[in-house]
Amino acid sequence: MARTSDPNELFSAAVAGDRGATARLLSLIERGGEPGRAVGRIAYPRSGQAYTVGMTGAPGAGKSTLTSATIGHLRSMDLEVAVLAIDPSSPFTGGAILGDRVRMQDHATDPGVFIRSMATRGHLGGLSLATPEAVRLLDAIGRRWILVETVGVGQVEVEIAGKADTTVVVVNPGWGDSVQANKAGLMEIADVFVINKADRKGVEETRRDLEQMLDLSDLPRDAWRPPIVPTIASTGEGVVALWDAVVAHRAHAESTEQLAQRRAFRSREELREIVANRLRERAREICTGDRWDELTSAVVAHTTDPWSAADEMLAGIVA
Amino acid sequence: MARTSDPNELFSAAVAGDRGATARLLSLIERGGEPGRAVGRIAYPRSGQAYTVGMTGAPGAGKSTLTSATIGHLRSMDLEVAVLAIDPSSPFTGGAILGDRVRMQDHATDPGVFIRSMATRGHLGGLSLATPEAVRLLDAIGRRWILVETVGVGQVEVEIAGKADTTVVVVNPGWGDSVQANKAGLMEIADVFVINKADRKGVEETRRDLEQMLDLSDLPRDAWRPPIVPTIASTGEGVVALWDAVVAHRAHAESTEQLAQRRAFRSREELREIVANRLRERAREICTGDRWDELTSAVVAHTTDPWSAADEMLAGIVA
Repeated sequence: MARTSDPNELFSAAVAGDRGATARLLSLIERGGEPGRAVGRIAYPRSGQAYTVGMTGAPGAGKSTLTSATIGHLRSMDLEVAVLAIDPSSPFTGGAILGDRVRMQDHATDPGVFIRSMATRGHLGGLSLATPEAVRLLDAIGRRWILVETVGVGQVEVEIAGKADTTVVVVNPGWGDSVQANKAGLMEIADVFVINKADRKGVEETRRDLEQMLDLSDLPRDAWRPPIVPTIASTGEGVVALWDAVVAHRAHAESTEQLAQRRAFRSREELREIVANRLRERAREICTGDRWDELTSAVVAHTTDPWSAADEMLAGIVA
Repeated sequence: MARTSDPNELFSAAVAGDRGATARLLSLIERGGEPGRAVGRIAYPRSGQAYTVGMTGAPGAGKSTLTSATIGHLRSMDLEVAVLAIDPSSPFTGGAILGDRVRMQDHATDPGVFIRSMATRGHLGGLSLATPEAVRLLDAIGRRWILVETVGVGQVEVEIAGKADTTVVVVNPGWGDSVQANKAGLMEIADVFVINKADRKGVEETRRDLEQMLDLSDLPRDAWRPPIVPTIASTGEGVVALWDAVVAHRAHAESTEQLAQRRAFRSREELREIVANRLRERAREICTGDRWDELTSAVVAHTTDPWSAADEMLAGIVA
């Protein structure tokens, strides 16, 4: 493994297949700040070839098992794959495979598979900014399929999974209760539905439920109607059909303007987010120090009003 | 009513008792922007004498009836009072008394009572910035008691009610289900609990429930244990006891450092919020225009990376 900490050298090593170098570049991205940005600047112009598949669903829906089975299917076709497992709620991270992703360890020694867990570390923009950067790095070093798996259906997770080129939403028979809070959000991002654990009862009810919701929705996504695929991830049943659905959606997205439009939209959103973040960073720098203490004391004493105090703190930043 | 639109003249008229002028100044605050700020700058140095009482609880708990009964009690002691009824969810506003606050109209023609509904209009900081400004205006024109009533127990509402000098949380017998989502938030802000509709069954269970939660909480608020007051707002029963509890809390807060500390904390929070808002405003200005369009197109085309694009947009703002 490369001993350098120079991002350019690490990048060259990663391109040459050094997994440790890839892991270290991802750590830099995760930590954020100027070193992370430097990695981003290297990766950006070299990215744009990969296709990303998001995978989300309630905890316990079987996403990891399904991801593992999907990796197996891709490897059987001799395709290489990288997996980012995103966990906004976990303080832990750093290349280690998390406990509940133990099944993915089947693939841990396969050089055609790269698996990485990511959690919120220091990155100021959080995972919503770090994830696209990590995807671009894996893209730039030559991975053509990137799976982005999130652990739950919280707002950040749905947002991250929804930023993939194709998004798979995994539910179980009788799914309603477990995702009640974010059903609308899941409906909106889904390009493919999977009913996993399809050996349990209630598959047909769940399918009808989904079809009905699709009937009621506006289907604004270029008239693509998300197919519903039953799977039993633990046995691998239905995984080929799932992948076929992903490939079909990709073909649709590429043949219409959908993919280009989505990517352009994501780019603009990300740029806006970066600008907003830099300003937030700046606000944090401003609201500290001796002058800040003096001004807040003056406001508390009613000798200065808060707008005049803000004007002074912002002088030179906001005209 | 004063025909001027000059904030200084409106302010003089409001101090002299012109209710229309007060209403127009509040509208300026609600709308935000520079005219709103001008009102704020006039009011700020003249404020600091009023005492604010927040009143919150789930919809249907009987807050408006309780507020109306409280106004009656204050008027019977010849005290003047102003009421701000805050409704973050409503797009309507503008001095009109909202439908469900019809009971307060009993006091609409009493010159010792000023009632105003506020909702989110254009104010960029939303109600969390507009409310303290409105309170300071009412304070500056001479109102000594200001009741701030919020319509529900959402995050914004709890936050606003919790910024009063004394906060009253209104529950009903068997309250648990209606406020499940924000029980912890309500426990944290309560200085006084009211069990309204105490003619219904379940009052003692609710009291035990509250006492138990108080026992489990850390009671960080200067060792003040919130009293629990049963009321029947529709008949006025318990309203004197409620007000006595508010006055007792006020005496406690004034005799300890609690009131001064709370107010200083609020001032600092507000200043920080104003700074953050001005930067957000600036970001919105930045992320628009021809250069923005060019840069986003370049990012989409992968000819510029987003960090370089952000650097350019932020040049001169963020060092």
